Amino acid sequence: MTTSSLFRPPVTRRPDPSLAHRRADVRLTLRGPDGAALAGQDVVVRQTRHAFWFGCIGFDLVDLANGDSRDPGYDQLLADAWLDVFNQATLPFYWGTFEPERGVPRTARLRRAAEWFAVRGVVVKGHPLVWHTVQPGWLLDVAREGGDRVTAAGLAEVERLQRERIRRDVTDMAGVIDTWDAINEVVIMPVFTAEDNAITPLARARGRVETIRIAFEEARAANSSATLLLNDFDMSTAYECLLEAVLEAGIRIDRLGLQSHMHQGWWGEEKTLDVLERFGRYGIPIHFTETTLLSGELMPEHVVDLNDWQVDEWPSTAEGEARQAEELEAHLRLLLAHPDVEAFTYWGLSDRGMWLNAPGGLLRADGSPKPAYDRLRDLVRGEWWLAPTTLRTDAEGRVRVTGFLGDYEVTLPGVRDAAPLPFSLDSPGAVERTLRLA
Amino acid sequence: MTTSSLFRPPVTRRPDPSLAHRRADVRLTLRGPDGAALAGQDVVVRQTRHAFWFGCIGFDLVDLANGDSRDPGYDQLLADAWLDVFNQATLPFYWGTFEPERGVPRTARLRRAAEWFAVRGVVVKGHPLVWHTVQPGWLLDVAREGGDRVTAAGLAEVERLQRERIRRDVTDMAGVIDTWDAINEVVIMPVFTAEDNAITPLARARGRVETIRIAFEEARAANSSATLLLNDFDMSTAYECLLEAVLEAGIRIDRLGLQSHMHQGWWGEEKTLDVLERFGRYGIPIHFTETTLLSGELMPEHVVDLNDWQVDEWPSTAEGEARQAEELEAHLRLLLAHPDVEAFTYWGLSDRGMWLNAPGGLLRADGSPKPAYDRLRDLVRGEWWLAPTTLRTDAEGRVRVTGFLGDYEVTLPGVRDAAPLPFSLDSPGAVERTLRLA
Repeated sequence: MTTSSLFRPPVTRRPDPSLAHRRADVRLTLRGPDGAALAGQDVVVRQTRHAFWFGCIGFDLVDLANGDSRDPGYDQLLADAWLDVFNQATLPFYWGTFEPERGVPRTARLRRAAEWFAVRGVVVKGHPLVWHTVQPGWLLDVAREGGDRVTAAGLAEVERLQRERIRRDVTDMAGVIDTWDAINEVVIMPVFTAEDNAITPLARARGRVETIRIAFEEARAANSSATLLLNDFDMSTAYECLLEAVLEAGIRIDRLGLQSHMHQGWWGEEKTLDVLERFGRYGIPIHFTETTLLSGELMPEHVVDLNDWQVDEWPSTAEGEARQAEELEAHLRLLLAHPDVEAFTYWGLSDRGMWLNAPGGLLRADGSPKPAYDRLRDLVRGEWWLAPTTLRTDAEGRVRVTGFLGDYEVTLPGVRDAAPLPFSLDSPGAVERTLRLA
Repeated sequence: MTTSSLFRPPVTRRPDPSLAHRRADVRLTLRGPDGAALAGQDVVVRQTRHAFWFGCIGFDLVDLANGDSRDPGYDQLLADAWLDVFNQATLPFYWGTFEPERGVPRTARLRRAAEWFAVRGVVVKGHPLVWHTVQPGWLLDVAREGGDRVTAAGLAEVERLQRERIRRDVTDMAGVIDTWDAINEVVIMPVFTAEDNAITPLARARGRVETIRIAFEEARAANSSATLLLNDFDMSTAYECLLEAVLEAGIRIDRLGLQSHMHQGWWGEEKTLDVLERFGRYGIPIHFTETTLLSGELMPEHVVDLNDWQVDEWPSTAEGEARQAEELEAHLRLLLAHPDVEAFTYWGLSDRGMWLNAPGGLLRADGSPKPAYDRLRDLVRGEWWLAPTTLRTDAEGRVRVTGFLGDYEVTLPGVRDAAPLPFSLDSPGAVERTLRLA
């Protein structure tokens, strides 16, 4: 029979807490412009970028990037803290806030924000191209053809507009944003009841798989080199089954997005390992796209839709901050230990303006760092980072360095006018690099 | 692109509590052997079978059917009660109890049981051909190649044996059992952890969809006219997603099996309608394959795997019995109101030997009927049944009868030696039938 299935036998890659799979052990040979080994020379090696994506949302910096911050001092503080740790930003492309007035998308504004990050060496992801919430009101009117019931003709028009929206925005951002959450939360999409919207009935009419196909097909057509994610919060077997449906349908998912908004408490080691093992078996690299850990009281377990928990005050506490730091470190170590995980994105830097008013930031509302921020920085720019390190080359001009996969540069303080020599570590284990001064 | 998808746009058929879609209004014309209308003649019309499957498991009657009952009086009482209400029996083909010793399947025993039902006009379904529990111990040894870890070669042999088992049993039962739960509980199958078995690692290695394909492909090959079900207890979006995966893979599911073991309480109208609406939209006729309602204390809500609730005593109570009768009637009325539902199978007639020791029977352990049994019988053989009804033909030899879809016969007490005249009502609404005496 003909089949377009992309389902493959399962991949089983075991976690390795030593993180050996994240490190390379490089022997650098340094040569002068004439090719002769630079023997007995002091060199300084330093890391300039992580290959792993340590990300955060960049929503709060859109104003600053556009030069219209309402609190420039605070926003600059945020920006400094942000850039001191993270190398991947997720920017908001919720249709309802991106194009609240039909035909007037905030393209220029978001493009400037994306460029602000990009010029600072940050990878930018757009989130999301298709989702059933944060919809523009006018889209529901389209679905209802101006009446009070969704019609088949209305849905056909919604599909056309959704496709057009994807093509437009992916095209407009190409080169600056080449990674997209193509579609968000499809497990629940056709059965979502909390809010009337135009996308739920579309997903119901077309089916989950065809709705996913719309998103991937249009985004791929607009930017063939884009990295496209399927993203969901549902870590149950439902998401496995959905993924199997998508693979059976022959739709190529570049990266698998797993949310982890842990407002009800850290998953803990057992659940985290279970999720990694279950979702890792599809052989699709995993992005932890949305992580939240609270530094205050937890949300009660009985709450199913986190949006149902609305409180006025939700303070960060000393005890909560200590716990958050512990849990963030434990969680991150588990993620990095798993070879399938490529990215980790924290969902909000500061408590000011946090989703649900929750104390989930890494900075307090006043901008001061919580222990979790310091802990994260200690890992990302400390334990897992090669700070400038002075070494002396041997008789063959060689030095040995071990570091996390990423970008590096070598400077030669003893050589006049020597430009820094960049190199990259792309794959783990022992490697050789020869660098030659110009 | 090539696609083998069997996914179709959603079907929306609304429930109709009047059950008009279950009834036909027939005008019968009766003629003599010479073709002349039998005018002014008394005729008795009676129903002989329901088109709808009102089913129950037949596990308890296997001994009686094989003539080796250990309590013949009790079993005969069960048999009488069984046959007085039901027209569909589910028989146990759990591999572990069907073939506990490799190569010695209980084929003859199950075939006799199936025939016992079949000659009494009962449709027999086999349950299930593939499942990850109630496995024979020797199969796990095969998966482990005699060692203590499942191997790839071991799994290949398990797959071969599983395929062979399906072909053998479907072939052996063909003509008596032509309906099968081809595979059971696939949503959880590859992530099931409660018990080591050979099928979970097979499902993990092949993927859910390919495991389903194995079941359907082999059963279909062995009996091309078989009615094959996909059956699950998971009523969440996970089962929707799995079904979408199966349809994308081009696997034809004849009937969709939905379990409803309601040990933690009746679903209630809202959930029942929601389940019907969500699973009805795939356009596949629905069988409620496994229904349990308790006449005693309910299992606490915190229990996730019902098998975890093990108690010594679980009495049926007067209050519980009244509730069970109400709920069974309400549930059944909702199911029949939905045009997609074709079958309803209750999971156990008597409390004696009930799964989990639960008071889920329609008879008490002593065989006396609970109110739920009487209520069910009143519906199936009362409100929804045409008892023998005497009518007089008009001048054109005609009578009018309204009845549930199913089989009927007409007898003519005033005509000597007139054999009963059978007819069927297959589709709802107004129909015409002409019957002629031989």
